[in-house]
Amino acid sequence: MNVADLFHHPPLALLASAGDAERLPFQMLAVFGCAKLLAEAAQRLRMPGVVGGLAAGILIGPSMFGWVQYDGLLHAMAELGVMFLLFQVGLEVRATELVRVGKVALLAAVLGVALPFAAGWAIMTAAGHPQIESIFMGAAMVATSVGITAQVLASKGVLSHRTAQVILAAAVIDDVLGLLVLAVVSSMARAGGLDWAGLATSTLVSVVFIAAVVKYGSRTAGLVVPRLTRSLRVDEAEFAVAVTFLFVMALLAAYSGVAAIIGAFLAGMALAETASAHLHTLVRGAGELMVPFFLASIGLQLDVSVFQSGSTVLLGLVILAAAVASKWIGCGLGAAALGWKDASRVGAGMVPRGEVGMVVAQVGLKAGAITQPVYGVAVFMAVMTTILAPPVLSFLYRDVPASEAPQARLELG
Amino acid sequence: MNVADLFHHPPLALLASAGDAERLPFQMLAVFGCAKLLAEAAQRLRMPGVVGGLAAGILIGPSMFGWVQYDGLLHAMAELGVMFLLFQVGLEVRATELVRVGKVALLAAVLGVALPFAAGWAIMTAAGHPQIESIFMGAAMVATSVGITAQVLASKGVLSHRTAQVILAAAVIDDVLGLLVLAVVSSMARAGGLDWAGLATSTLVSVVFIAAVVKYGSRTAGLVVPRLTRSLRVDEAEFAVAVTFLFVMALLAAYSGVAAIIGAFLAGMALAETASAHLHTLVRGAGELMVPFFLASIGLQLDVSVFQSGSTVLLGLVILAAAVASKWIGCGLGAAALGWKDASRVGAGMVPRGEVGMVVAQVGLKAGAITQPVYGVAVFMAVMTTILAPPVLSFLYRDVPASEAPQARLELG
Repeated sequence: MNVADLFHHPPLALLASAGDAERLPFQMLAVFGCAKLLAEAAQRLRMPGVVGGLAAGILIGPSMFGWVQYDGLLHAMAELGVMFLLFQVGLEVRATELVRVGKVALLAAVLGVALPFAAGWAIMTAAGHPQIESIFMGAAMVATSVGITAQVLASKGVLSHRTAQVILAAAVIDDVLGLLVLAVVSSMARAGGLDWAGLATSTLVSVVFIAAVVKYGSRTAGLVVPRLTRSLRVDEAEFAVAVTFLFVMALLAAYSGVAAIIGAFLAGMALAETASAHLHTLVRGAGELMVPFFLASIGLQLDVSVFQSGSTVLLGLVILAAAVASKWIGCGLGAAALGWKDASRVGAGMVPRGEVGMVVAQVGLKAGAITQPVYGVAVFMAVMTTILAPPVLSFLYRDVPASEAPQARLELG
Repeated sequence: MNVADLFHHPPLALLASAGDAERLPFQMLAVFGCAKLLAEAAQRLRMPGVVGGLAAGILIGPSMFGWVQYDGLLHAMAELGVMFLLFQVGLEVRATELVRVGKVALLAAVLGVALPFAAGWAIMTAAGHPQIESIFMGAAMVATSVGITAQVLASKGVLSHRTAQVILAAAVIDDVLGLLVLAVVSSMARAGGLDWAGLATSTLVSVVFIAAVVKYGSRTAGLVVPRLTRSLRVDEAEFAVAVTFLFVMALLAAYSGVAAIIGAFLAGMALAETASAHLHTLVRGAGELMVPFFLASIGLQLDVSVFQSGSTVLLGLVILAAAVASKWIGCGLGAAALGWKDASRVGAGMVPRGEVGMVVAQVGLKAGAITQPVYGVAVFMAVMTTILAPPVLSFLYRDVPASEAPQARLELG
């Protein structure tokens, strides 16, 4: 099953081993250039462009050509990329719209956490894995990574469709639930008692943080930011204020226990009503540079060499199928009030696990709770759910008109 | 002299030691936020904004608060920042204008390399340092880092002034000369014979590369890029093509022995005549995000703790004075044909040594050719020449009207 060896030493791989001065431009070119080239190819095949970015990571990563290692720099660029992606999405979304769909989103998030956890745990237990390993696989299947879905919906211009609002709101709630699940299973792996007080505190902090930003963020930002921007003399003052605010919110989110990208999303949302068209375009420029690194990073983390035995391959496929079905059905049932067509869109939008699932698997691996093959299966599940979603979403939204194509709006100012 | 210890443990320093999830947003916020805050302060004090970015690096770096370490990530972000900076500058410059000032620029570059080398060597020899150390200090004083000057001239809207053209052309030639000097002194440090054939080849390759891009770049890009952009379906195709081209040229430049940023500058110049206003704004967005990291990186590399003895302090100040005077006078004499006022502008614009001087010092340190205190002096010289230049340039260009403020042009499209 290990195709990596076949590709590992092409002439171009020599470039990657070149001196210090060449390494950075080479990495940038390999990731950015391949992501854009394959995005073009994907669009010509009538698939969303993100598929190309994801495929680029697999192509240049350890699974195929091995030109690029997923190192600290690419990890940081990927994180910045997904922060800017969610910030851009936030700029297109109003907090009031998210609050309106709150109940449906809450139900979708809860069922979309419960079913995947149960499915992962049951399959692993049935396959004879230890209890703690089964629990960790369940936990890795819980958390949704909303970045890819957001990118697909934004590029189709359907971010203001009610299903997009439900997906975004559910993703925020899902992140809080994922934090809880990870805290519980981590303490189980450490074999110590669960710190209930600490857990309650961090839940409260994260919920209060999110609720405060959703409720008061736009109003406060609307009062402060334009006045601040006007009073500044620095070049591109609005961009300087917005990006500083983005990093402040990402940091606060990380401190309160939720993902930095949730902070980035909330920051964008708080600025949505005051941001100028010029700010949109500048942020888009930064995003266009960084987002390909996020997309490619997903594929770069896939390593097919873990699939050495038939039973691991089988486990990987069963877990993948369960991860897709349980999330789709769980979130879909939660959003059933929208009718089956929209419920199905919400379910499909929540399927990608991306980097969030991988973080859980890494915690389990470091704690010795899961073995290397099971870690590989979890990463495979996280990557493949992310790759499968864009074409499915593109199909499910084929008859939704682009109500307000963000790109067109930006260019017209 | 070591002020670092006084500041190293403020409450905020605790933030930097936080968990993995917080580290990236913290680093980003510390660098970007401080750079913008101090840029605002600098502009209110009627100094160029870049001074604030440089000061931010000193403030948050090892010399003062120690909140941020200059690690691999910040180094890469800084390199990307200066690549985008030079790419943006290139977009404002036509190759024909550079060729027109070629002779003056060549003379300025040659004298601006010879005098600093001689001055550095003479001072170190007079101070009783070993021959190889004296030669390395001379070499570290040779190479100009044009990024800061370019940023100051761009923000003043005087990039089309003839002195700006001379500075940019001279900086490109200076980079080739610096490559030669570094190759020669490196081989001396290795105590092996000089590889004359290799040196001749790499010189020829770099000169041919630069000449080919300057002569045929715009014409070729003018034919290929618009057609390619129109035929692509990927989002923001022009940006995708331009940034891929930027990384290709940076990589080719690095392979041919010159700095990646020279490649970035040539890439921008090749696209100058075909780039749309929308591309300018997108590139500006990416640059606005990355450039503060370049500015701060200069100050982050300063570590005042090397100045433990009075003799090192004295050496540092003498070397700094010589570095400023020799470059200013050398380049000024070379550009004497422009009249003393413009010659003085060219000389001042070439004073910053920035990251290029530091690279030479690092090579010397690794090869064991220079001691730690002398390395510290070289870094101090590189940082301080860079910090001193912007206010001086701002003063020298005070009566040059912004012929074509790039910013205004961009916004009006």
